[in-house]
Amino acid sequence: MSETIQLAQQLLTIDSVTPHDKGCQILIADYLSPLGFNIEPMKFGEVDNLWARRGSDGPLVVFAGHTDVVPTGKESAWKYPPFSATIADDGMLYARGAADMKSSIACFMVATKQFLAEHPNAKGSIGFLITSDEEGPAVDGTVKVIETLEARQEKIDYCLVGEPSSSDKLGDSIKNGRRGSLNGKLIVKGIQGHIAYPELADNPIHRLAPALEQMVNVRWDAGNQYFPPTSFQISNINSGTGATNIIPGDVEMLFNFRFSTEQTPESLKKGIHAILDQYHFAYEIDWNLSGLPFITPAEGELIQAIRKAIKIEMGYEPNLSTAGGTSDGRFIAPTGAQVIEMGPLNATIHKVNECVSVADLEKLTAIYQRTLELLLLK
Amino acid sequence: MSETIQLAQQLLTIDSVTPHDKGCQILIADYLSPLGFNIEPMKFGEVDNLWARRGSDGPLVVFAGHTDVVPTGKESAWKYPPFSATIADDGMLYARGAADMKSSIACFMVATKQFLAEHPNAKGSIGFLITSDEEGPAVDGTVKVIETLEARQEKIDYCLVGEPSSSDKLGDSIKNGRRGSLNGKLIVKGIQGHIAYPELADNPIHRLAPALEQMVNVRWDAGNQYFPPTSFQISNINSGTGATNIIPGDVEMLFNFRFSTEQTPESLKKGIHAILDQYHFAYEIDWNLSGLPFITPAEGELIQAIRKAIKIEMGYEPNLSTAGGTSDGRFIAPTGAQVIEMGPLNATIHKVNECVSVADLEKLTAIYQRTLELLLLK
Repeated sequence: MSETIQLAQQLLTIDSVTPHDKGCQILIADYLSPLGFNIEPMKFGEVDNLWARRGSDGPLVVFAGHTDVVPTGKESAWKYPPFSATIADDGMLYARGAADMKSSIACFMVATKQFLAEHPNAKGSIGFLITSDEEGPAVDGTVKVIETLEARQEKIDYCLVGEPSSSDKLGDSIKNGRRGSLNGKLIVKGIQGHIAYPELADNPIHRLAPALEQMVNVRWDAGNQYFPPTSFQISNINSGTGATNIIPGDVEMLFNFRFSTEQTPESLKKGIHAILDQYHFAYEIDWNLSGLPFITPAEGELIQAIRKAIKIEMGYEPNLSTAGGTSDGRFIAPTGAQVIEMGPLNATIHKVNECVSVADLEKLTAIYQRTLELLLLK
Repeated sequence: MSETIQLAQQLLTIDSVTPHDKGCQILIADYLSPLGFNIEPMKFGEVDNLWARRGSDGPLVVFAGHTDVVPTGKESAWKYPPFSATIADDGMLYARGAADMKSSIACFMVATKQFLAEHPNAKGSIGFLITSDEEGPAVDGTVKVIETLEARQEKIDYCLVGEPSSSDKLGDSIKNGRRGSLNGKLIVKGIQGHIAYPELADNPIHRLAPALEQMVNVRWDAGNQYFPPTSFQISNINSGTGATNIIPGDVEMLFNFRFSTEQTPESLKKGIHAILDQYHFAYEIDWNLSGLPFITPAEGELIQAIRKAIKIEMGYEPNLSTAGGTSDGRFIAPTGAQVIEMGPLNATIHKVNECVSVADLEKLTAIYQRTLELLLLK
């Protein structure tokens, strides 16, 4: 069995359910240390993070990943125990975290070892930024490590995030940006009362209704070269006492924007307030920005290198995409780093029987190694 | 102390919280029996009801009332213990049920006794229809007694419901009808999904939004001589998993119509379906009719008699009203009986320190007696 698969299995047998690392990062550090990496554990709150760097020159190529995994759900629903890291007859490695994203870490570890063995004097630096708080609140993880690096002016040039970006075959899609995400909690206030006397009450659901209709019908923008149009979605609406004869006193609604670089949090807030203010009712909104949109332009060296690496190893070129949820790339991109997400197929992530193709992991290791060569041997 | 006040206090010291009668009806029966009433207890399920009738000729004048009361809430919040039936220095009789509606029962009992003493050979019949399930589900109460009477073709001509109809002074308002009440539970079905992939989901809140806006803005009718315009109110709306990143799979909304005789349950249902069907989404509605509107026209003998009785005893004429919630009158009116609600002031009902004026009870007894005279001595 290859070193990549052995390492992946070692990581996958550790039940590091978010926000727990449970020793994964020590295993990684012990592997990197003999390769000349400076090991710097960074614990924030209860969260283990690892910053490992080899070299002091630029450019600095960083692999960003996470050792925490989402919960397994009912273990009996799995074909193989979720922390057994079983390789089945179908050529798949089954485990929670197999695709998202311990295998990618193993691939990049081996790619780095092989690259350094072949090119011990290559220019530049290689770093690993590993957190155990990506699947959780993401408060004491990557964002804090980045703050630390920024404070000491340690600049990342190229960042490869090992998230499972592929759809149907390995490397068919890479993510060169993500939409922004803005949450709002709206409370509309009315006056509670008996339903037989509506003239003595003020129904907040009725107040909200025309504004709601407007909000869901706004076309915020048309997107652009990299982004689909901004999307507005209501996730929750709740009002009422449960009784059928009481007009409720307020209504609460949670909504979310996934927004392109055509918008800013301010433009979206302004748009929502402009709608609500037309109707002269009392309301409050609690805003929570969970990430700004970011984009790494297609002409950057990082994308060029990864595209070329995939083309060489797989025979086809990847699509660029900004679809899907947020990732820790949102914390790294604002530093000015070129950021790309490239990893295995995402079809099984967060599901029972999460798995990854053993053959793909060998290819992914090769793609990662080729990327390092293209960036650091120029 | 007058017999009315003594009887009221006897009834009010019994803690007959709905649906319990706790012997109130036996007390009433023991009073009526020596007056020549035929006593017929009618127990349905756990609910005690009393049907007492004197005479077999028409017209049949019935007093309808209930011995059950709403819960007291925190007893320590009361000025006097809620089942102490304390007469305070302010001339008020304090007790849960003082206004709603044990005192009215006492008044009609004494009015009947006095009427029969003065006119032992008056034509027609007098009946008492007393339930202990008016404040509760109202399933095994008046509706079942009426079914029994209907089955044996025992027809009520005039029904005086002792509900507290007065607003500012005794007899200023009597209710000659009630609006209908129709409940609907609407479920709109969508497809749940991750908020980052709205194209793979179908947000039921967004689907509902334009229909909601239409529903709250419909002017159903303008009301008529007796009724205010039909009112539509949403009492509850609920959707969402609590998570901010999930598009919900459905939304549930409870709404209620209080409707005039300009509408039927069918016309309202048709109107709601006509709105929803425009939008081509999947939905279900569970309808629950809690009462049809009913009206006793102003020119009927019952209203004429009560108006005249109030005018004689109080010096002013009552307003006719159909405002407020439902009452057991809704079960009696469909038999063809003339139905009117006339009782004490309703300012304190269902509240702490419920009370009724002792002086008003004497006048109410006189009004009731005068009404019997006007109906049965013609």
